[in-house]
Amino acid sequence: MKHVLVSFQGEHGAYSEAAASSFFEKKNTKIKTVPHSSFSEILAAAEKGKTDFAILPVENSLEGSVGESYDLLYSTTLKAAGEIYFKVQHCLIGTAKTVRKVKTAYSHPQALGQCRKFLQKNKISPMPAYDTAGSVSIIKELEQDKAAAIASRRAAEIYQMPVIKEGIADNPNNYTRFLLMSKKSAKKTGDDKTSIIFSIKHKPGTLVRILEEFYKNNVNLTKIESRPKKVTAWEYNFYVDFEGHKDNKEVSSMLKEIKKHTIFFKIVGSYPAGRLQ
Amino acid sequence: MKHVLVSFQGEHGAYSEAAASSFFEKKNTKIKTVPHSSFSEILAAAEKGKTDFAILPVENSLEGSVGESYDLLYSTTLKAAGEIYFKVQHCLIGTAKTVRKVKTAYSHPQALGQCRKFLQKNKISPMPAYDTAGSVSIIKELEQDKAAAIASRRAAEIYQMPVIKEGIADNPNNYTRFLLMSKKSAKKTGDDKTSIIFSIKHKPGTLVRILEEFYKNNVNLTKIESRPKKVTAWEYNFYVDFEGHKDNKEVSSMLKEIKKHTIFFKIVGSYPAGRLQ
Repeated sequence: MKHVLVSFQGEHGAYSEAAASSFFEKKNTKIKTVPHSSFSEILAAAEKGKTDFAILPVENSLEGSVGESYDLLYSTTLKAAGEIYFKVQHCLIGTAKTVRKVKTAYSHPQALGQCRKFLQKNKISPMPAYDTAGSVSIIKELEQDKAAAIASRRAAEIYQMPVIKEGIADNPNNYTRFLLMSKKSAKKTGDDKTSIIFSIKHKPGTLVRILEEFYKNNVNLTKIESRPKKVTAWEYNFYVDFEGHKDNKEVSSMLKEIKKHTIFFKIVGSYPAGRLQ
Repeated sequence: MKHVLVSFQGEHGAYSEAAASSFFEKKNTKIKTVPHSSFSEILAAAEKGKTDFAILPVENSLEGSVGESYDLLYSTTLKAAGEIYFKVQHCLIGTAKTVRKVKTAYSHPQALGQCRKFLQKNKISPMPAYDTAGSVSIIKELEQDKAAAIASRRAAEIYQMPVIKEGIADNPNNYTRFLLMSKKSAKKTGDDKTSIIFSIKHKPGTLVRILEEFYKNNVNLTKIESRPKKVTAWEYNFYVDFEGHKDNKEVSSMLKEIKKHTIFFKIVGSYPAGRLQ
């Protein structure tokens, strides 16, 4: 059986990679993951046909929207073809037998920040590193019981390092929403979402007229966000997600109507709605 | 003359501190800045009356909204009383005479990422550190020409270190928007903005009804963003900024009307509109 190729940002063991694996596992589809160092590179790989999908983080329940990803959704030629909500579960990883033996913890500053209370309580010094999975490879080389890393269980497995403690984040409600970007569109399933981007003149009333279209057609919005197109100009791009597939008859005619009120309009894609696990 | 006390997140020389200084300098008001290690601590300091203001970053033109700040705006008892758009201008700082002599650059991973092309072009290895200003203190202690830091000009001045090159970020359009949070509300100036937070039932039509109020009253929105209240529940908080002061007669009656359609409603504050510098 052929593997599906998925480009992701980070090193093997990254949360992005774990999210892609869990998504395709449920479909009994084998995947090969290809690491890249930036979001624009993972999209370029899929655009050039080197990979079938790129997995792009778009929002995190604690940190908010990923600005860089939203800018890339605007410019990419790929379509959103899948949605994944993935629970971020930080583990303390290392060779120490107990948490008490650990003196320093390596990880990405965001992960260190999300485990601040745990680190303070256990008097562990945080050591910033480039990414979560990479910090496991750092402590593996260090070969010291007192040095640990904070990363996913999958990262521990990949580097064959023991998990000292699981679920050490201060707030367990830590989810990242990913979009699977592809050259191919996803088929209707009856439980779909659609992402669009549009811009309007900064004039009262236009946004209302657009949102009335959703109301009239009984379509639920699941997200709305304005982002200035350029910081110096008072023009906005709106990022809107809603329930329904672009190929539904009602949705399709609604989008045509909405387009009339915009100066830029793009359908990022329609995809089966992801679920919180 | 008494100083105004401002709590900020980071070490002396941080961009937050520089933004606060530039804001009050224009008003010929002397300030003392008080560093704290987290956003919740800077707000707690102002809530307890230990400082007069807390300066909170809410959005960045490249990175998007600061999720943690938006959650704190929801819960704080402070009012938004000022708005600052501050240009982030990264400098290469160190004792090397030329860029070519520099082999490693210390900084916060976000700043390193924003200078990626400059670092690659000049074959400088990035070294992640906890914050931008702190990295200047690190390289000062190292006393090596080949080690530099990426931070603000102000950080260089504070640590009395030379600037090797200014404006090294790949994208010069890098602005952060800050809100000055205080126990006291700001007076009307005629050029004000207001921030509100509200939640509505996830039912088509409610958001349209609310936005119609803005339209009917000829009030310009400058931002709208939905954030899920809890990841597990399909309920949203909306963060909306608009032009006008809450004590304007029209705005005040409009807000009363809007409140009727909400299940949670909070005026974060009205403040003189900040301008891009």
